[in-house]
Amino acid sequence: MRALWLEDRTLRLREDVSRPTPPPGEALVRVCLAGVCNTDLELVQGYYRYAGVPGHEFVGVVEEAPGAEEWTGRRVVGEINVVCGECVTCRAGRATHCERRTVLGIVNRNGAFATHLALPVANLHAVPDGVPDDIAVFTEPTAAALEIQEQVKIGPRDRVVVVGAGKLGHLVARTLATTGCDLLAVGRSPRPLALLAECGIRTGTAEAVTDRAFDMAVECTGNPEGLEIARRAVRPRGTIVLKSTYHGRTSVDLAPIVVDEITLIGSRCGPFAPALDLLAQGDVDPRPLVDERYDLSETVAAFEHAARPGTLKVLVDCGVRS
Amino acid sequence: MRALWLEDRTLRLREDVSRPTPPPGEALVRVCLAGVCNTDLELVQGYYRYAGVPGHEFVGVVEEAPGAEEWTGRRVVGEINVVCGECVTCRAGRATHCERRTVLGIVNRNGAFATHLALPVANLHAVPDGVPDDIAVFTEPTAAALEIQEQVKIGPRDRVVVVGAGKLGHLVARTLATTGCDLLAVGRSPRPLALLAECGIRTGTAEAVTDRAFDMAVECTGNPEGLEIARRAVRPRGTIVLKSTYHGRTSVDLAPIVVDEITLIGSRCGPFAPALDLLAQGDVDPRPLVDERYDLSETVAAFEHAARPGTLKVLVDCGVRS
Repeated sequence: MRALWLEDRTLRLREDVSRPTPPPGEALVRVCLAGVCNTDLELVQGYYRYAGVPGHEFVGVVEEAPGAEEWTGRRVVGEINVVCGECVTCRAGRATHCERRTVLGIVNRNGAFATHLALPVANLHAVPDGVPDDIAVFTEPTAAALEIQEQVKIGPRDRVVVVGAGKLGHLVARTLATTGCDLLAVGRSPRPLALLAECGIRTGTAEAVTDRAFDMAVECTGNPEGLEIARRAVRPRGTIVLKSTYHGRTSVDLAPIVVDEITLIGSRCGPFAPALDLLAQGDVDPRPLVDERYDLSETVAAFEHAARPGTLKVLVDCGVRS
Repeated sequence: MRALWLEDRTLRLREDVSRPTPPPGEALVRVCLAGVCNTDLELVQGYYRYAGVPGHEFVGVVEEAPGAEEWTGRRVVGEINVVCGECVTCRAGRATHCERRTVLGIVNRNGAFATHLALPVANLHAVPDGVPDDIAVFTEPTAAALEIQEQVKIGPRDRVVVVGAGKLGHLVARTLATTGCDLLAVGRSPRPLALLAECGIRTGTAEAVTDRAFDMAVECTGNPEGLEIARRAVRPRGTIVLKSTYHGRTSVDLAPIVVDEITLIGSRCGPFAPALDLLAQGDVDPRPLVDERYDLSETVAAFEHAARPGTLKVLVDCGVRS
């Protein structure tokens, strides 16, 4: 099958990648649309070791589901962590951290920049008819944004600042807005801030962050400077959520974390069902984030585009549109 | 009055420090016994700007309490944060983080290495008759250790490792042991580990820390290496409590915090009442930590002793023993 292939930090389009043969319990999915995520760009930069087909944000149609034929023909999105269900971590209810997991397009499992992918049926979520592909493809990053609400109780009395208004920060701010919290999103570039402002979210630059005025700050910049802004923003006993990863070691002054009794929480993958609900209800329409769509044959160019500063979301059409 | 004086990183004994005159609401306390804490040593090293009488761990007797005469003659310990009760932080129930606070022997308030100190009556806790001075003097650090249990729910099913078995780590381990959690304390030096082992606590060196086997790790070493051990110890979605402060910037790899969704919590001052209860009930007897006692006239030497590697607790007799 046609697929994007990553190896030794190099991307190339291949026509000879084997179409996956789903083992029992898995489904073969024909990919309709896939999104380029910062994690994909980081894989190319070699921050994580991975060789294979990248891509973990997708919407597709089930072509085969041996033993679960009722799924055949359904339009689906899919959770990206494929877990054993048996290890200590899975049994403790932390399956997304399964010690033996593969991760779609990230760890030991070919991903979505291809005509087809395979995932366990257990990972699939049917997409409601009213949700177009270019919204459904945002289910995975919307779920990741919702993970914050799984970790921290947030309500209308909470003052929250989102640091970074890129594609991650945008979805974080949009999902947090649904809690009714007192929200501010800050960033450097005018365009992503304007997108959020159009959604009714208060925006500003880092100078708009009043010292110690926030109950929570969510770091979405991937930049240690973002962490400094978050640190300055939160009140004593406040919470900083680290939503973006940093590469290599970061120099941090930890003394204020202790003196001010700050809680710092790492946050990764989130729950698909509420994400799909939010998208289906129209509470979060992520389509303004889309800068460009490419065909699967042009995925290398799509990655180059996605890596250019200021780019928000780049999508890749992987086959016949549903 | 006689008092230890810190100025420009230099300690000296003075005879001419003014005895405090308690304003309304405050009490004059004759200090019986005071403890040297790492924070005191850090003040001398200049990590925090402070000029005045250091010392915040004490037990004493109330000599005067204008308007609250019922306190006169009582043996007391005292909470160290003197708060305004009116600022946003106080009104939000986070009084120990009061924006306008003074802190006994640390921020703008002369401390315990003196014949007398002043504290608000509201800060005082009467010491039960059965609790000797050399136990009561540990109320403040025991409260700080108990702060962890205010922040994180810990029970018999939790696997907890305390990294560092010094005077802070010792009290942290002793107080955590009362939760019935599955506890391991690790450290470098045999003597403090032996003290904990005598209390029935499982001990080991860093090599005894099985990777990702702990629900929680408490960092009590004040050393970035301790944080690395804690990081390695905790499972995905586990908790690291930072109980000790680091000075200057620490180089941290934050990516695993995000990927493993670790929670990092800074932890400082804690609740006096349950600390005093624990000490009164004999659940925690901290006296084995005491390496030496000095007279107030020898406090400079007491600090030199406390600063020597391997030293646990040094106490200073500040006056007539109760």
